[in-house]
Amino acid sequence: MPMTYIEKLNKATAAGNVCVGLDPVISRMPEHLRERADGLNIFCESIVSSTAPYTAAYKPNLAFFEALGRDGYDALERLIDSVRKNAPQAIIIGDGKRSDIGSTAQRYAVAMFDRWGFDAVTVNPYLGSDGIKPFTERTDRGVYLLAMTTNPSAVELQDHGGEGDPLYLRVARLAETLWNEDNNVGLVVGATRADRIARVRELSPSLPFLIPGVGAQGGDLDTAVSLGLSPDNPPGVINSSRGIIYASSGEDFAEQAGEQAKLLRDNIADCK
Amino acid sequence: MPMTYIEKLNKATAAGNVCVGLDPVISRMPEHLRERADGLNIFCESIVSSTAPYTAAYKPNLAFFEALGRDGYDALERLIDSVRKNAPQAIIIGDGKRSDIGSTAQRYAVAMFDRWGFDAVTVNPYLGSDGIKPFTERTDRGVYLLAMTTNPSAVELQDHGGEGDPLYLRVARLAETLWNEDNNVGLVVGATRADRIARVRELSPSLPFLIPGVGAQGGDLDTAVSLGLSPDNPPGVINSSRGIIYASSGEDFAEQAGEQAKLLRDNIADCK
Repeated sequence: MPMTYIEKLNKATAAGNVCVGLDPVISRMPEHLRERADGLNIFCESIVSSTAPYTAAYKPNLAFFEALGRDGYDALERLIDSVRKNAPQAIIIGDGKRSDIGSTAQRYAVAMFDRWGFDAVTVNPYLGSDGIKPFTERTDRGVYLLAMTTNPSAVELQDHGGEGDPLYLRVARLAETLWNEDNNVGLVVGATRADRIARVRELSPSLPFLIPGVGAQGGDLDTAVSLGLSPDNPPGVINSSRGIIYASSGEDFAEQAGEQAKLLRDNIADCK
Repeated sequence: MPMTYIEKLNKATAAGNVCVGLDPVISRMPEHLRERADGLNIFCESIVSSTAPYTAAYKPNLAFFEALGRDGYDALERLIDSVRKNAPQAIIIGDGKRSDIGSTAQRYAVAMFDRWGFDAVTVNPYLGSDGIKPFTERTDRGVYLLAMTTNPSAVELQDHGGEGDPLYLRVARLAETLWNEDNNVGLVVGATRADRIARVRELSPSLPFLIPGVGAQGGDLDTAVSLGLSPDNPPGVINSSRGIIYASSGEDFAEQAGEQAKLLRDNIADCK
């Protein structure tokens, strides 16, 4: 029997609850790497290697690699190899927010789990069960559904239904009661609207959280940890992307990324 | 000034309102092509060339190409070249249903519009304006937002808010009033729940529709045309994927695909 996703997650989070978001943009990389043909690979691989001791999960966002075409696909492949080598206990979450009707979602599941080999993915729940099931039926992989995202306009649709019954809470409820039959569903719950984390948690006690939005996006870490990472629930991870990968734009970028990952790990532990 | 998306759409739909959905699966291709290294390319290019006279839009769904890894990316690139050559008036809609927070959606816009060169994309609206704007600000390209999808479980979230104010109608309303400031937004409105097309149209008179779900998924063409493709609204397209590309599994697959595209074009015209 392969390990279940929750088993993988338990093992990965023994090292803490840090998720490093890998969203590389060439123009934001250290100057000495921008012009080099292998600069992107060096950037990603150096960050993986320096953050490995402090990191439970790596979360490459596919948009940043797709925007670079073939070089991006190559870099993503090498990045995944690099995590497997340097941080064999860590989980890799393919952040693609894919979703489609069932027969198509099944092809995305093949792309994400078999072609790329991700341990988990993010999925947009707008299409409901049919679009989610092709991912969740892979019982050794994890599926984080978007509940409440971090962006300012998240409320336009995610609050639909009103204060008493907003859409994001319907997602939380269905995720807990309908979509989690294989015990591998989690939720993306942004840290930028702290009061909502507690409301989601109330409806979804058995789901692990992936919490973005601390750091550059302004979410409060203490609230995210106290409301989202209780020992009564499956282990969650707190994502930081720009705060770690762009910690320094100098030659010490990797060292500084490692420092920031370590600091986040320690700060999370202190908030518990 | 480059053509606006509506100008492109007007030009493309002079040939009718057929959108050919390109969702290739190796095991469903004609037997004589399955084992050939260039079988996928031959399959896609033959279908494009035989359907070109009857087709307003081609809609490759990215899931089917991503599931094939590098071969898939190559095939998609060649497919796009083939449409430009064989059907220069046709629009290519990159069906990826992407969405993310603003800075990330911007990278998806680069991937879809610059790397792949699609004329239009499908976008999942769950994140609201921030996730939509990076696509719509490309004023020469089109953005079809998912309103009501064709799959059985679409209602789980898309009906949230109840009969009087379901989510899919909020999408329709916001698309018309808030998200369409560059006059390049359209809506994906499935044909499988016919009564809803009229409700969406009432709220979105100025938006072009992309209507999937006729053919293999069982939607009624007559209703889709009469409710969705009125001459009072911008030109819509009706998508058929499996009904065209798998019209025959023999050596005559391309000829039969052409026949089916022609038939759909004529049937749409008859329903008007």
